[in-house]
Amino acid sequence: MTVKAYGAYAGDKPLESMDITRRAPGAHDVQIDIAYCGVCHSDIHQVRAEWAGTSYPCVPGHEIVGRVSAVGVHVLGFMPGDLVGIGCIVDSCKHCAECDEGLENYCDGMVGTYNGPTSDAPGHTLGGYSQQIVVHERYVLRIRHPEEQLAAVAPLLCAGITTWSPLRLWKIGPGRKVGVVGIGGLGHMGIKLARALGAHVVAFTTSESKRAAALALGAHEVAVSRHVEEMSLHANSLDLILNTVAAPHDLDAFLALLKRDGTMTLVGAPASPHPSPQVFNLIMKRRSLAGSMIGGMPETQEMLDFCAEHGIVADIELIRADEINKAYERMLKGEVKYRFVIDNATLAA
Amino acid sequence: MTVKAYGAYAGDKPLESMDITRRAPGAHDVQIDIAYCGVCHSDIHQVRAEWAGTSYPCVPGHEIVGRVSAVGVHVLGFMPGDLVGIGCIVDSCKHCAECDEGLENYCDGMVGTYNGPTSDAPGHTLGGYSQQIVVHERYVLRIRHPEEQLAAVAPLLCAGITTWSPLRLWKIGPGRKVGVVGIGGLGHMGIKLARALGAHVVAFTTSESKRAAALALGAHEVAVSRHVEEMSLHANSLDLILNTVAAPHDLDAFLALLKRDGTMTLVGAPASPHPSPQVFNLIMKRRSLAGSMIGGMPETQEMLDFCAEHGIVADIELIRADEINKAYERMLKGEVKYRFVIDNATLAA
Ligand SMILES: [Zn+2]
Ligand SMILES: [Zn+2]
Ligand SMILES: [Zn+2]
Ligand SMILES: [Zn+2]
Repeated sequence: MTVKAYGAYAGDKPLESMDITRRAPGAHDVQIDIAYCGVCHSDIHQVRAEWAGTSYPCVPGHEIVGRVSAVGVHVLGFMPGDLVGIGCIVDSCKHCAECDEGLENYCDGMVGTYNGPTSDAPGHTLGGYSQQIVVHERYVLRIRHPEEQLAAVAPLLCAGITTWSPLRLWKIGPGRKVGVVGIGGLGHMGIKLARALGAHVVAFTTSESKRAAALALGAHEVAVSRHVEEMSLHANSLDLILNTVAAPHDLDAFLALLKRDGTMTLVGAPASPHPSPQVFNLIMKRRSLAGSMIGGMPETQEMLDFCAEHGIVADIELIRADEINKAYERMLKGEVKYRFVIDNATLAA
Repeated sequence: MTVKAYGAYAGDKPLESMDITRRAPGAHDVQIDIAYCGVCHSDIHQVRAEWAGTSYPCVPGHEIVGRVSAVGVHVLGFMPGDLVGIGCIVDSCKHCAECDEGLENYCDGMVGTYNGPTSDAPGHTLGGYSQQIVVHERYVLRIRHPEEQLAAVAPLLCAGITTWSPLRLWKIGPGRKVGVVGIGGLGHMGIKLARALGAHVVAFTTSESKRAAALALGAHEVAVSRHVEEMSLHANSLDLILNTVAAPHDLDAFLALLKRDGTMTLVGAPASPHPSPQVFNLIMKRRSLAGSMIGGMPETQEMLDFCAEHGIVADIELIRADEINKAYERMLKGEVKYRFVIDNATLAA
């Protein structure tokens, strides 16, 4: 089946309209007509070959929502017409310890929604900037939000789960104090989710101008990171810091805000390393610096259900597919509140 | 009470014999005649003013064993003649969350055994390179080893608890695989304790010549860190790495050996920072880089009791007090297997 997509033929070329093929659904496959696809920073890095190993043509997009249009003969959980989502994962080995625990995101055989290995043409996976996708049922998520929220649900599939997974792993809830560093696509979801989980939430930003916005998103307090006194108000007080900033920055300023046994988890990876954190900052309070990468299928479904129940969606700006190159430029300047979402109906144009 | 000690009058002066005073035991104090005192790398850093804020005269020593010679009127747990130990802590606030949890080592009011604030003369605490010490009963530990092992018990009070505390926090036991980086004072205890706890132990060393010694200490396997193939045998396999090396080194080579959710805990702090660890190494397997600092009183007693039960002591070389300056030079060259212990009877000479 040939469908319309938006992608790039090389790292130094803009994205453009192209035709791609999708396989016919196998026995365990779900075929999805994509309604919307969120635009993640990873999309830019990958399509521009800023990370190693991009295959072309590259069709990005791993924040996918839509409706089931066909299912394989062995698929029991989904029917045509169902509202579903696809996140960052479309395959994994299905039999390792990680897969058995529902942590497919840490499976060594994990296949990304785009630029992953596949036997489908053209030999690598093609993502959600397209009209349709066909995925094994294991990696298909049910969406229980009302349909009118569908576009704003899309970013939950990457930005949502990337922040949800560490919040749950580190047992965030009432009585816990959480810091969220960076108020962008990831950070704005981190604030919403931590608040809904019952934690006391402190947002950290480099920008005085984001103070009101962070409070509006649900932060109880905001600290501008260059204000030393504002930062020091939170010294030794945070249970968890969710650090969403991918640009290299001083980690010690934040590590010093963790209480004993607190953890700062990094969910963004900078192109060049952060300045080396001071070992004393870890030793003196038995603090940890950790990382976390998206999430597994069961926890992604848990997050979607939690968000449906609590009325949580992303703050988005809907764009046409042919606006994607301009949208990338605006993202790189931080000029989006907080996530672009492509209206995939515009791919047909 | 005036007693003999060995200490330095300035950071650039050798240690020499001196007289110091000890307070008369208060109602909750235990007075200890010191039999032996271990020599820790911290002693060198502190006495030579390589860390901030050394007060002089400086009498180092926080691996203290001896016999109770007097007790205050309210002391119920100890009697004259008891074999006891003093580690790195001689006081704390006694009412914070950390103290309440028996983690006096993380109390903001923790007073180190030497160079800590005190109202006793000369205004800072003086350590175990001395004939006697007087300490509040809360910080006195019971020693259940046979008396002939007493000198070799001394290093348990710092090197032992520093490695025991993270092994216990990260639940090391049968079925778990532990790496110990560095085979010195701390590392040799880490190997012994991890082995006795039932873990599979891999020792990492820069030196081919330490291979046999590491196996003799109880390591199941040894990897020489410059041998890339030997290192790669352990990729993604370790639950915990106890990194005892205080010199700056490549942390990524070890982080890559942790399995998913594994932790590398640093127990040594380098004077200049380690090269910055790669964020991808943390994110891709949800690994943590942590720190840990000595241990609290209950866990120190637990460690001493475990060691008594399992016949564990440090490997030591006994020295006279007047050999301490030469011993420091040998420690800096790594020429000790694995801990010097001062025979405090030689202070009287
Ligand atoms: Zn993403
Ligand atoms: Zn797997
Ligand atoms: Zn020590
Ligand atoms: Zn305290």
